[in-house]
Amino acid sequence: MKKVAIIMGSDSDLPVVEKAINTLKSFNVPYEVHVYSAHRTPLEAANFTKNARKNGFGVIIAAAGMAAHLAGAIAANTTLPVIGIPIASGGLGGLDAVLSTLQMPSGIPVATVAVNGAVNSALLAIEMLAITDKNLAKALDEKRQNDKNAVLEKNQAVEDKFNI
Amino acid sequence: MKKVAIIMGSDSDLPVVEKAINTLKSFNVPYEVHVYSAHRTPLEAANFTKNARKNGFGVIIAAAGMAAHLAGAIAANTTLPVIGIPIASGGLGGLDAVLSTLQMPSGIPVATVAVNGAVNSALLAIEMLAITDKNLAKALDEKRQNDKNAVLEKNQAVEDKFNI
Amino acid sequence: MKKVAIIMGSDSDLPVVEKAINTLKSFNVPYEVHVYSAHRTPLEAANFTKNARKNGFGVIIAAAGMAAHLAGAIAANTTLPVIGIPIASGGLGGLDAVLSTLQMPSGIPVATVAVNGAVNSALLAIEMLAITDKNLAKALDEKRQNDKNAVLEKNQAVEDKFNI
Amino acid sequence: MKKVAIIMGSDSDLPVVEKAINTLKSFNVPYEVHVYSAHRTPLEAANFTKNARKNGFGVIIAAAGMAAHLAGAIAANTTLPVIGIPIASGGLGGLDAVLSTLQMPSGIPVATVAVNGAVNSALLAIEMLAITDKNLAKALDEKRQNDKNAVLEKNQAVEDKFNI
Amino acid sequence: MKKVAIIMGSDSDLPVVEKAINTLKSFNVPYEVHVYSAHRTPLEAANFTKNARKNGFGVIIAAAGMAAHLAGAIAANTTLPVIGIPIASGGLGGLDAVLSTLQMPSGIPVATVAVNGAVNSALLAIEMLAITDKNLAKALDEKRQNDKNAVLEKNQAVEDKFNI
Amino acid sequence: MKKVAIIMGSDSDLPVVEKAINTLKSFNVPYEVHVYSAHRTPLEAANFTKNARKNGFGVIIAAAGMAAHLAGAIAANTTLPVIGIPIASGGLGGLDAVLSTLQMPSGIPVATVAVNGAVNSALLAIEMLAITDKNLAKALDEKRQNDKNAVLEKNQAVEDKFNI
Amino acid sequence: MKKVAIIMGSDSDLPVVEKAINTLKSFNVPYEVHVYSAHRTPLEAANFTKNARKNGFGVIIAAAGMAAHLAGAIAANTTLPVIGIPIASGGLGGLDAVLSTLQMPSGIPVATVAVNGAVNSALLAIEMLAITDKNLAKALDEKRQNDKNAVLEKNQAVEDKFNI
Amino acid sequence: MKKVAIIMGSDSDLPVVEKAINTLKSFNVPYEVHVYSAHRTPLEAANFTKNARKNGFGVIIAAAGMAAHLAGAIAANTTLPVIGIPIASGGLGGLDAVLSTLQMPSGIPVATVAVNGAVNSALLAIEMLAITDKNLAKALDEKRQNDKNAVLEKNQAVEDKFNI
Repeated sequence: MKKVAIIMGSDSDLPVVEKAINTLKSFNVPYEVHVYSAHRTPLEAANFTKNARKNGFGVIIAAAGMAAHLAGAIAANTTLPVIGIPIASGGLGGLDAVLSTLQMPSGIPVATVAVNGAVNSALLAIEMLAITDKNLAKALDEKRQNDKNAVLEKNQAVEDKFNI
Repeated sequence: MKKVAIIMGSDSDLPVVEKAINTLKSFNVPYEVHVYSAHRTPLEAANFTKNARKNGFGVIIAAAGMAAHLAGAIAANTTLPVIGIPIASGGLGGLDAVLSTLQMPSGIPVATVAVNGAVNSALLAIEMLAITDKNLAKALDEKRQNDKNAVLEKNQAVEDKFNI
Repeated sequence: MKKVAIIMGSDSDLPVVEKAINTLKSFNVPYEVHVYSAHRTPLEAANFTKNARKNGFGVIIAAAGMAAHLAGAIAANTTLPVIGIPIASGGLGGLDAVLSTLQMPSGIPVATVAVNGAVNSALLAIEMLAITDKNLAKALDEKRQNDKNAVLEKNQAVEDKFNI
Repeated sequence: MKKVAIIMGSDSDLPVVEKAINTLKSFNVPYEVHVYSAHRTPLEAANFTKNARKNGFGVIIAAAGMAAHLAGAIAANTTLPVIGIPIASGGLGGLDAVLSTLQMPSGIPVATVAVNGAVNSALLAIEMLAITDKNLAKALDEKRQNDKNAVLEKNQAVEDKFNI
Repeated sequence: MKKVAIIMGSDSDLPVVEKAINTLKSFNVPYEVHVYSAHRTPLEAANFTKNARKNGFGVIIAAAGMAAHLAGAIAANTTLPVIGIPIASGGLGGLDAVLSTLQMPSGIPVATVAVNGAVNSALLAIEMLAITDKNLAKALDEKRQNDKNAVLEKNQAVEDKFNI
Repeated sequence: MKKVAIIMGSDSDLPVVEKAINTLKSFNVPYEVHVYSAHRTPLEAANFTKNARKNGFGVIIAAAGMAAHLAGAIAANTTLPVIGIPIASGGLGGLDAVLSTLQMPSGIPVATVAVNGAVNSALLAIEMLAITDKNLAKALDEKRQNDKNAVLEKNQAVEDKFNI
Repeated sequence: MKKVAIIMGSDSDLPVVEKAINTLKSFNVPYEVHVYSAHRTPLEAANFTKNARKNGFGVIIAAAGMAAHLAGAIAANTTLPVIGIPIASGGLGGLDAVLSTLQMPSGIPVATVAVNGAVNSALLAIEMLAITDKNLAKALDEKRQNDKNAVLEKNQAVEDKFNI
Repeated sequence: MKKVAIIMGSDSDLPVVEKAINTLKSFNVPYEVHVYSAHRTPLEAANFTKNARKNGFGVIIAAAGMAAHLAGAIAANTTLPVIGIPIASGGLGGLDAVLSTLQMPSGIPVATVAVNGAVNSALLAIEMLAITDKNLAKALDEKRQNDKNAVLEKNQAVEDKFNI
C-alpha cells in the first residue's frame, strides 16, 4: 500500500497533528511523520517532496499556521495530492492559515480541510488510497457505520433524558 | 479508469464549473456532469452518491455557493473523496461558501479548493486517480512543465521589456 | 397543540440547547429532543423530518456548529418552518456557523437566530404556534412584561446606586 | 387567513422586497406593504406593530440595510413572529445588516434570512401560517415539487450537453 | 451645566460603563445613569430620550452589545448628540456591536467610540459640553497634559531600563 | 456661532465630503474646508488644529480612507470634539478606515460615523453646537420632521401601489 | 549602488507592479524585473534569490495575490530584506493576500505594504538603500516635499472653492 | 553602525517588544528604546523622529495596538525605513492594528510585520542594515543556519518517535 506522509511546519503543531497520525494508525495505513518548514528548511521540504512518489508515498498531508505556505510549497514540488491542515494560532482564529492554504493559484491544487481538521485530513488521505483499494474502502464504510452508531447512541441518551 | 463526477448545485454555477470539465477533458479522464441541489433535490443527490463507487466513479467534485452544503451533503453519503468548490456570489466574496464547504465536522472530510477554483478541483481529482496510474502521473508532470514554461516565457517577455 | 422538535447535530451542543428546552417547558409547549447529524446520520434526520408534520410537529429547531448544514438539511425535507441556531465553536466565533445556516438558497428558508441564541429559538417557535393560539400569545405577552419588569428593577438598582 | 405585513426601512429596498410581495401573491396570501423607518418614523413603526395582531396580521417581514434595526425594533413591539431581511448596501456586502438583524438579545427573537433573501422571507412567513393551514401546506409542497422539477430539467439539459 | 445621561442596555454592561461614570465624576460633570433596553423597555427609553433636552441633558451616552440598537434607537428620539459604546460580548469580538452602532442611516447620527471605549465616550461628551464652557475646556487640556506626563514618565522608566 | 472645520486627507475624498458641506450650508452653520494629510502635511494639520478653538471653531470633522489616521491625529492636538468619517476605498469596503478611525486609545476620543457618512458627520456637528443653541436645536427638529414626512410620503406611494 | 529586484508571481500583476518600476526609475535606482512563481517556477525563484546578494541586489520586492506565498518563499532563501505587495484579486478584496504575505513565522520577516501598494514598496526599498546613501536620502526628502506641496496646492484649490 | 530605534505606543506593549530588543542585542546591533504615543505625546514622537537620521539611527521600529497610528505617524516625519508591529489587543485579534499599520497611503510606506511579530521586526531592521554590512549579513546567515538546525533536530525527534 502507498504510504501517507504527514509534514508539519513546526513541532508545536504536533498536538493537532497527532490525531491524524492516530487515525492513519487505526486504519493500518503506513505513514511517515516529518517536521519540515517551508521557510526554515525549504530545501529539505522540497527534497522530500520531489522523491515522495518514487519513495512509495501516495498522499502528503501538510499542517501549518499563520501565513501557512507549507502545503502550497509542497504541492509545488509534486503531483501527488497534497492535503492542507490550517492550524489556528494567534488572535485571528486560523483565518490567516485558511486563506494561505486554500487560495492556491490555478495549476497547483491543495485539498484544504477545516481549521485544525487533522482527523479529516487523514480520512481524506485514506479515501484517496481507497479509490483503488476495496479493503480500505470497506474499512472506511465501517468507520462511518461506527460514527453513525455513536450518534444514534447519543440520540438515545438524549431522548431518554428529555423526552417523555 | 475511474470516472470523475462533477455536480453543481445550480446551473448558474456552470461558467465556473466548465473549467473543471475542460481540464478533465484535456487529460482524457472520463467524467459525468450533473445538476443536483443539496436542498431542492436531496434524494437525487444522495442516490447518485450512494451508487457512485459501484458505478465506476473514483472522485466527486461538488460546486456550490452561499450556504454551500452540497459537497458536505455528498460526502455524507460516500467514502469516495469529495472535492468542494466554493462559488462566489453576492457581497461576501465567497467567504460564506468557503466556510460552509471547509468547516466540516470530524468524520466527513471535504477537500476544499479556492473560491471558484474549478481548474484546481479537476487537477486534484486527477492527482487522486494518478496515485495508482503512472500514465496519468506523467501527464500531470507534463502539464506542470508546460505551466512552468509558460511562466518562463512571460518572464522572458517582461525581462525583455523592462530590463536593460 | 403542535409539538416543537429540537434537533442538535451533536450532543456537545446540549449546554446551549438546554436553554431552548427549558424555555419551551416554561410555556408548557410539548417538545421532543433528538441528536441527528446532517452528515453522520443523514437518513435518520431526513426520516424524522419528512414525517414531522404528520407526527404532530409544528416547528423544528436545529442547532449546529462549524459548517452548520443541519438546519438547511432539515429544511430541505419539510415545509414546516425550521429555525437554525448557529453554535459557536473554534476560533471563528461562530461566523462559520452563522453563514452556513443563514445563507440558504431561494426556496428553502431557514429562520436563523443569533449565535448560541437558544432561548430566542424557542421563543420564535412559540411565536409561530401563537399565531393561531390566543393563550400562547397571552403567555408570550406576559413573559415580555416580566422581562420588562426585570429591566426596570435593574434600572432602579442602578439609579439608586449611581444617581443622587 | 392571517395577513403578512411587509415593512421596509426605505423605499430604496423595494427592488429586493418586491420578490417577497410576488411570492406572497403567488400563494394568494393576503399582505400589506409599508415603508416605516426604525429611526425616522419610529412612532409609526411602533403603532403599526402594536396593533398588528389585532388587525389580523400573523407574521411581519422587515427589510433594512446597514445598521439594520428595523426588524428588532418591530420585534420589540409585538409577539408576532418577525422575519428580518438584511439588505446589502455599501462595501461591507451586507455583513453589517446581517449582524444588526441577527444578533438579537435573549427575549426578542428575529427570524433572519439570507442577505437580500426576500423570496425566502415570504416562504418562511407562509410556512408559519401553514402550521395550521393544510391547504397552504399543500401549496408549499407543490412549490417544492416544482422547484425540484426545475432542477431536474436543468440537470437533464446539462447531462445532454456534457455527458456522452 | 448640562447633564450627561448614560444609558446601558443591560446591567451586565456596568463593568465597562462604570469607567464612563468615573470619568464624568472626575470632571465634576453632572450625570444620570439608567438601564433602558431598546428592545425590552423601548417605551421607557423613548420617553426618557424625548424629554432629555428639556430635562437639562446635553449629551446621551448609550452602551450596548450584539445587535446594539440602543444608541440608534435613542438617536431616533432626540436631536441631542448621542454617543454609542459598542460592548464586546460573544465570539465576534464586538464587531457585531460596532457595525450595529456605527452604520446609521443618513439623518440619525450616532457618535461611535471604540469597542468598550467607555472612558472616551465620557471624554467626548465633556468635549461637546466644553465647546461653550471654558473651564471644562481647560480641565480637558489639563487631563491631556497629565496623560502626556504619564507617558513621559513611562518613557523615562523604559529608557532607564533598556538604554545605556 | 462657532464654526465647523471640515478636513479631508485627500481631495479625492471631496465627492463624499461635499455632502457634509451642503448639510452645514443648509443649516447656515459657518464652516471652513481644508485638505490636510496626516502623513504628507502633518505640521499644517497640527497647526490648524492647535489653533482651532481660539480661531472660533467648535467642532472638527475629518475624513480619510485606508489607514485613516487623520481624525486621530487631529484629536491628538485639540480637546475640541473631532468627528471621523471613514472613507471606503479599495477592496476592503472601508473596514480598514473604520477600524483605523474608531479604535482610538483611551484619552483621545474620535466620534466615528458610518462609512462615507458625510451627512451624519455634519448633523452630529450641528447637534453638538445645538446643545447650547436653541435655534439650531429647533432647526434640527424641523429637519427630522421633514425627513419623517418624506418617509411617510414614500410609505403612501408604496401603500397606494401595493395595498388594495 | 545596490540594485532592487522586482519579482511578480504572474504577469497579470504587471499593471500594479509597473508603479513600483516607475518609482524606482524616477529615483535612478537600478532595478531588474522578473516573473517567478512560488509554485510554478519555485526553482527559478530560489536560484535567483540565493544569488541576489552576490549579484549586486540590496532589496527584493515580491508581488502576489490570493495565497500569496511569493514574498515568503523568497525571504526563505535570502537574508536581504524582502518587501511583499499583496495583490487584490477575487472577492476577498486582497485580505487573503495580506494575511498570506504578512503573517510570517518568526525568523523569516517580510516587510508588507498595503494592498496593491506598489509605489510604497519602491519607496521603502529606496529608504533601505538610503540608510547609507546621503544623495538618495536627499532625493527622498525632496519627493516628500513635492508630495507635501501637491497637498498644499490641492488645499488651496479647495479653500478657494469652498471658503469665503 | 547605525542604531535601531524601538518605539512603543504604550509600555503595555513591552512584553511583546522585549523580543525585538533581545534580538537586536543578540546581534550586537546598537539600539534605543522609547515610549512615545502618536496621540498622547505626538510632539515628542515627531521630534525624536525628525532628528533620528542625524542622531545616527538607520531604522525605526514602531509597535502599537488598536487604531495603531504610531508607525504611520513616525513614517510621516522621516525617510528612514519604518517597521510597524501591529499589537493584538481586545476582541478583534489584532486585525484593527494590522489594517491601521498596513494600509498607508502612497508616499509614506510602513514595513508591516505579523501581529505581535517583534522578533521579525528586529530581523528586518538588521537585514536593512546588513545591505551594506557584510559581517551583519554573515551573522544573519548564521542565525538562519541555526534556525534550520533547530528544525532539523525537532524533525529528528519527531521521526524517532513516530516513524519505525
